[in-house]
Amino acid sequence: MADLETKGVVLLDFWVSPFGQRCRIALAEKGVEYEYREENLGDKSPLLLKSNPVHKKIPVLIHDGKPVCESLIIVQYIDEAWPDRAPLLPAEPYARAQARFWADFVDKKVFDSAKNLLMLKGEAQEAAKEEFIEILRLLEGELGDKKYFGGDAFGFVDIALVPLTTWFYSFETYAGFSVEEAVPSWWRGASGAWRGQVSPTPFTTPSKSMSMPRRYLDSEESLHLRVCVCMSICVCMSI
Amino acid sequence: MADLETKGVVLLDFWVSPFGQRCRIALAEKGVEYEYREENLGDKSPLLLKSNPVHKKIPVLIHDGKPVCESLIIVQYIDEAWPDRAPLLPAEPYARAQARFWADFVDKKVFDSAKNLLMLKGEAQEAAKEEFIEILRLLEGELGDKKYFGGDAFGFVDIALVPLTTWFYSFETYAGFSVEEAVPSWWRGASGAWRGQVSPTPFTTPSKSMSMPRRYLDSEESLHLRVCVCMSICVCMSI
Repeated sequence: MADLETKGVVLLDFWVSPFGQRCRIALAEKGVEYEYREENLGDKSPLLLKSNPVHKKIPVLIHDGKPVCESLIIVQYIDEAWPDRAPLLPAEPYARAQARFWADFVDKKVFDSAKNLLMLKGEAQEAAKEEFIEILRLLEGELGDKKYFGGDAFGFVDIALVPLTTWFYSFETYAGFSVEEAVPSWWRGASGAWRGQVSPTPFTTPSKSMSMPRRYLDSEESLHLRVCVCMSICVCMSI
Repeated sequence: MADLETKGVVLLDFWVSPFGQRCRIALAEKGVEYEYREENLGDKSPLLLKSNPVHKKIPVLIHDGKPVCESLIIVQYIDEAWPDRAPLLPAEPYARAQARFWADFVDKKVFDSAKNLLMLKGEAQEAAKEEFIEILRLLEGELGDKKYFGGDAFGFVDIALVPLTTWFYSFETYAGFSVEEAVPSWWRGASGAWRGQVSPTPFTTPSKSMSMPRRYLDSEESLHLRVCVCMSICVCMSI
């Protein structure tokens, strides 16, 4: 892709996007300073269209004028471009493959299922709810007794999943179920590694990555904003 | 995932699957010896169900009892597990991100578009054809004057795309268009790097990876088998 007239590290993003949040978490974990540029998804900037001409979507990470697109690819790029601190993927090939598998699972299954949960009604929504809970159980099984998906260290799969979990409250409210009842072991046990570090709000992110989702978390009491967040999911998925 | 009672390298696969072909090409490029096990997708083996309990799909690479699933993840695993020969991804982080982007593009766009090309009729198929050609043009633009997508060496994006291109003849026949007319530069120029090495059949794979798609290529004269291949696309995508 073309070199762009930007310097240092620039992130083109939209505040509520879980895909953008992944990049912000990875940059925070690595301690990389960057310029955040909020995009208006209804009137995308020329820089966004030029830096991601194929998909025309946020997030885009531009590093010394070179754009990287697609959130999981950006997170892997961040891990490889700043290899000397806070590794996000494990070093061993099999563990790396497993991390990629579960991050891919989050992309392929969790987001599509969440979309169905929000967009379908009646029996179809009930089926979507069952599917979503089954997906959570698979993730619970993979997490097991580990603190994080990768073991003792916060890493790639956590980064893929954390932004979505901040919306669980909206999913529960909208579709009428309890994540705590569905995956009690995950809720009470290992997920404490995420929520214990930051606030009593369940399923949030480690403290050093928290500056970004705080804006959403502070809004949990507002029904209006909850609905906005639900709508934004669809926007983020289709734009 | 659970350790399995297999030794060495085992590939669970289905001969016409483009996803399985990617793994066979990567193993051939690396010179890794392995045991090929053909799966009956209508009656999947206990080993397949145990080694890929989440998706229950081929291909699965089992290395010393440890299963790796999802074709692009398997190819990256092969590259990292046998790092001393025939690198499939480039070494530099930005080039690696670009390779991952285009391989992901093939997964997200080419296969879905091909599916529409085969399953839709009338105006909807015409629209799918336009979309498919636009996708080919984007790939042609990325390939540019390079011999392979990664430059001088056959690599990750080629492996992602090559298996599908062996079906272009079927797409042309079924949907009524010419790949050569749609992307003449790719057809006449850089793609020669693929077809020149093996046979006059357009869009095939490098010679050392050729043992596998030969069975399909030999069948191009058979309309019956062409239809089987078209149907298999749908099977491979949905199973």
